[in-house]
Amino acid sequence: MSTAMHELRERLGEVSDLEQAAGTLQWDQQTMMPRAGAAARAEQLATLETVVHERATSSELGTLLDRAAEESAGEPPDSDAASLVRVARRDYDKARRVPGELKAEMARAGSLGQEAWERARAQSDFALFRPHLERGLELKRRYVECFSGEFDCAYDALLDDFEPGTRTAEVAAVFEELKAGLVPLIAAIAERVGTTGEEKASTSPLYGAFPAEAQRALVLQILPRLGFDPVGWRLDEAAHPFATGTPGDVRLTTRYEEDHLGMALYSALHECGHGLYEAGVAPELARTPLGSGVSLGLHESQSRLWENVVGRSRPFCTWALPLLQAAFPPQFAGVEVEELFRAANRVRPSLIRVEADEATYSLHVILRFELEQELIEGRLAVADLPEAWNARMRDYLGVEVPDDARGVLQDVHWSAGLFGYFPTYALGNVISLQIWERARAELPDLDARIERGELAPLREWLREHLHRYGRKFTPRETLVLAAGAPLDVRPYLAYLREKLGAVYGLAK
Amino acid sequence: MSTAMHELRERLGEVSDLEQAAGTLQWDQQTMMPRAGAAARAEQLATLETVVHERATSSELGTLLDRAAEESAGEPPDSDAASLVRVARRDYDKARRVPGELKAEMARAGSLGQEAWERARAQSDFALFRPHLERGLELKRRYVECFSGEFDCAYDALLDDFEPGTRTAEVAAVFEELKAGLVPLIAAIAERVGTTGEEKASTSPLYGAFPAEAQRALVLQILPRLGFDPVGWRLDEAAHPFATGTPGDVRLTTRYEEDHLGMALYSALHECGHGLYEAGVAPELARTPLGSGVSLGLHESQSRLWENVVGRSRPFCTWALPLLQAAFPPQFAGVEVEELFRAANRVRPSLIRVEADEATYSLHVILRFELEQELIEGRLAVADLPEAWNARMRDYLGVEVPDDARGVLQDVHWSAGLFGYFPTYALGNVISLQIWERARAELPDLDARIERGELAPLREWLREHLHRYGRKFTPRETLVLAAGAPLDVRPYLAYLREKLGAVYGLAK
Repeated sequence: MSTAMHELRERLGEVSDLEQAAGTLQWDQQTMMPRAGAAARAEQLATLETVVHERATSSELGTLLDRAAEESAGEPPDSDAASLVRVARRDYDKARRVPGELKAEMARAGSLGQEAWERARAQSDFALFRPHLERGLELKRRYVECFSGEFDCAYDALLDDFEPGTRTAEVAAVFEELKAGLVPLIAAIAERVGTTGEEKASTSPLYGAFPAEAQRALVLQILPRLGFDPVGWRLDEAAHPFATGTPGDVRLTTRYEEDHLGMALYSALHECGHGLYEAGVAPELARTPLGSGVSLGLHESQSRLWENVVGRSRPFCTWALPLLQAAFPPQFAGVEVEELFRAANRVRPSLIRVEADEATYSLHVILRFELEQELIEGRLAVADLPEAWNARMRDYLGVEVPDDARGVLQDVHWSAGLFGYFPTYALGNVISLQIWERARAELPDLDARIERGELAPLREWLREHLHRYGRKFTPRETLVLAAGAPLDVRPYLAYLREKLGAVYGLAK
Repeated sequence: MSTAMHELRERLGEVSDLEQAAGTLQWDQQTMMPRAGAAARAEQLATLETVVHERATSSELGTLLDRAAEESAGEPPDSDAASLVRVARRDYDKARRVPGELKAEMARAGSLGQEAWERARAQSDFALFRPHLERGLELKRRYVECFSGEFDCAYDALLDDFEPGTRTAEVAAVFEELKAGLVPLIAAIAERVGTTGEEKASTSPLYGAFPAEAQRALVLQILPRLGFDPVGWRLDEAAHPFATGTPGDVRLTTRYEEDHLGMALYSALHECGHGLYEAGVAPELARTPLGSGVSLGLHESQSRLWENVVGRSRPFCTWALPLLQAAFPPQFAGVEVEELFRAANRVRPSLIRVEADEATYSLHVILRFELEQELIEGRLAVADLPEAWNARMRDYLGVEVPDDARGVLQDVHWSAGLFGYFPTYALGNVISLQIWERARAELPDLDARIERGELAPLREWLREHLHRYGRKFTPRETLVLAAGAPLDVRPYLAYLREKLGAVYGLAK
């Protein structure tokens, strides 16, 4: 390796170490940390952010990037060396636009904000969280200003952090197409349920009495089938489940609701999808800026694929049912595969995004996408947010929000300063089907294998066609490599129409 | 606050944040981290060490220290400002002597070493650990060289990191006095046991069948009595129990042995003593170099005080017995206070330091103190260490070491590069009695309060007379502030003679 390239990797490796350290401290904050540690943790994260920013924007790094670019000029663009220089340069130029103090301030506010959010959510009291949200938005507006002239609108700058290269207008167009497909589907299901009265008559086996310990044991039976290194991951509990970590140290979280098995089961599969992506990045990209998933949309395609496309499929239900019966005999005795499959795919407008079914889920996202744009542009005041939230929930989903805990306070994102993140969930839905269709075409016995609990072949295919690339290519390029085509809503809508059409007996 | 002082505090605060971040990552490594994460964690800790070292030794910090010293020249020496400048200057001068690469190398080696030690210990195979120990010693010799001319011998430089200002010769003298007191005491007990046959006839209620979950529940009943902020601490399991953290985020660990309740109970009390010291440092010293315990000897005085002087006392046994009876009815039904007190104070030469009784404990320490000196000076080769260990265990304690797991591999310290640390355990024993005698003189109803489970008054006294000072004064000065006198072995020996004399019916 050339000298400049060697030095560059060492410098970038240090930045990566510090980012990973911060990631573990954030995990710790949400799973392990005593509550009174929040203020000190906020200082620690802010200082780490300062140090990362200093190193990621130092003029020495700029010089090294120039030298390494010269040295690697002859390398093919898809080589690790050329990709490293290209991506690191893009990160560097972007990071140089943001003052270190602002980054530190955002880290500190995010850490304190999460702590306030947890209290506010526990007491269902938006007022406790309001000043933190106002502060978070104020900081985000200052952040957006750092990119003045680069983007068409404020929201573009936020979105770019999570889905690099994607613009608000594109997302809005995709969401229109999604909405146009989903609304009639949801209406047809509602009409069908109204006609047959089936929904009222049936009770879901996923609701009942499920002790948390037994749920955890069940999840720990299922996840290893997806194929982690047995000593390379762990599972914990968090108020808002998330995944973090690196190959060899993947940290999944889930939440146990003792009256609803679906919460823990599907959120564990979801986070496992994220974890498998991070664990599957090519080892030679470790400790470089290429060593993680390329965008949140691609990331979410993996989590939604395992949670929904696999986890709520008839083959998976066939395999999982005996495990459920062994874990919770009273709830699942006599339950047929078809009944579990229908329970796993029940469509019903509801309050909580992470519990929403596949048909209504994207409407939860679209609501947040709209509110975020209004908040950042100052068209909506934070004080008016709960009312705006509740009104839109009524409009889009026909549900009444009974309290802020089940409304505007349900998600952790805004407390941590994550604005522009939500749309990637719905993009992930769309992408998950594009990738799934290709995988299924190349692995023709996939359904039969899933029915036997053989989940590793799919994981291997995903590693080969997506995970291993890390951040070597842009999200757009990566999508084409994995799915063979650019963003396309049709497979997702076709999948929902077919699956839910079968569940609810809709006309084709 | 003056400008230089303000800037100094900010800079030192950042160093403190990074050290705390590293502390949490080390805690994580020993309690939570998946095993395959060890290599990446080693890199992270090494990078954090590099950053800390860069910042703690920067010439800007030197200039700030000069300016702050001028500005605070008029302050009384015991003021926070004067102490901060004095202690930070001492730390700075010491840190400047060690190259950053060496510090990083030591951090990396310590992290990998711990991982290797865990495997070696699990398999009782010293060969797996040997290269790591050799590497650790090689690095330590390079470290010692950084202080050439400062100390009388290599070991002085190691000791100074844990017990600043104390020298090998002093420790050797104290240990001679200790040994001279302990050997006849142990012999008298052995003779008494041989005469009466009592030891063989009695069975200890602390040995039996104790499910780990129930042990944890018991420990969680006892520790809150010592008076932590209820949302400011947590308790986990670790192969080698330790405590870490800061006020508001104290992390205690213990180990559950399902056939021996004493392990978890006394090691939890021990680590709680450490945690209370850290939690008790004056809040205004937080995020400064003054914001932690002053030396390991003083620290150990706190852990041994709660573990032994309180935890194995008759008043504590009186209070704790009903809790033990409720937690483990079969084991403790019909057990009298006197029986528990005798079980808690049974003297029997044994293999494992952390399980040793108070009479034999210091001999375990003296053995390590001697071996460390021979290793660092190259008088003993690492390859010959197990044999030397086993021979000395035979000489000093009359026990045969059956395997390395219960011999040379029992402690984590050397794997983490902690040489010169062990002597502080025995110094802590000595100091614990000096402090206890003063506390008892000032809190005359202390025994009665402990008998009622009122442990907070002692904790308050310790905070007032020791904890709150943090690192403001030297260990020597701090000892005099807390105990009213310099290091003195006599109270400790008198305490052992009295307590164990009563337990074993020895002539006065």
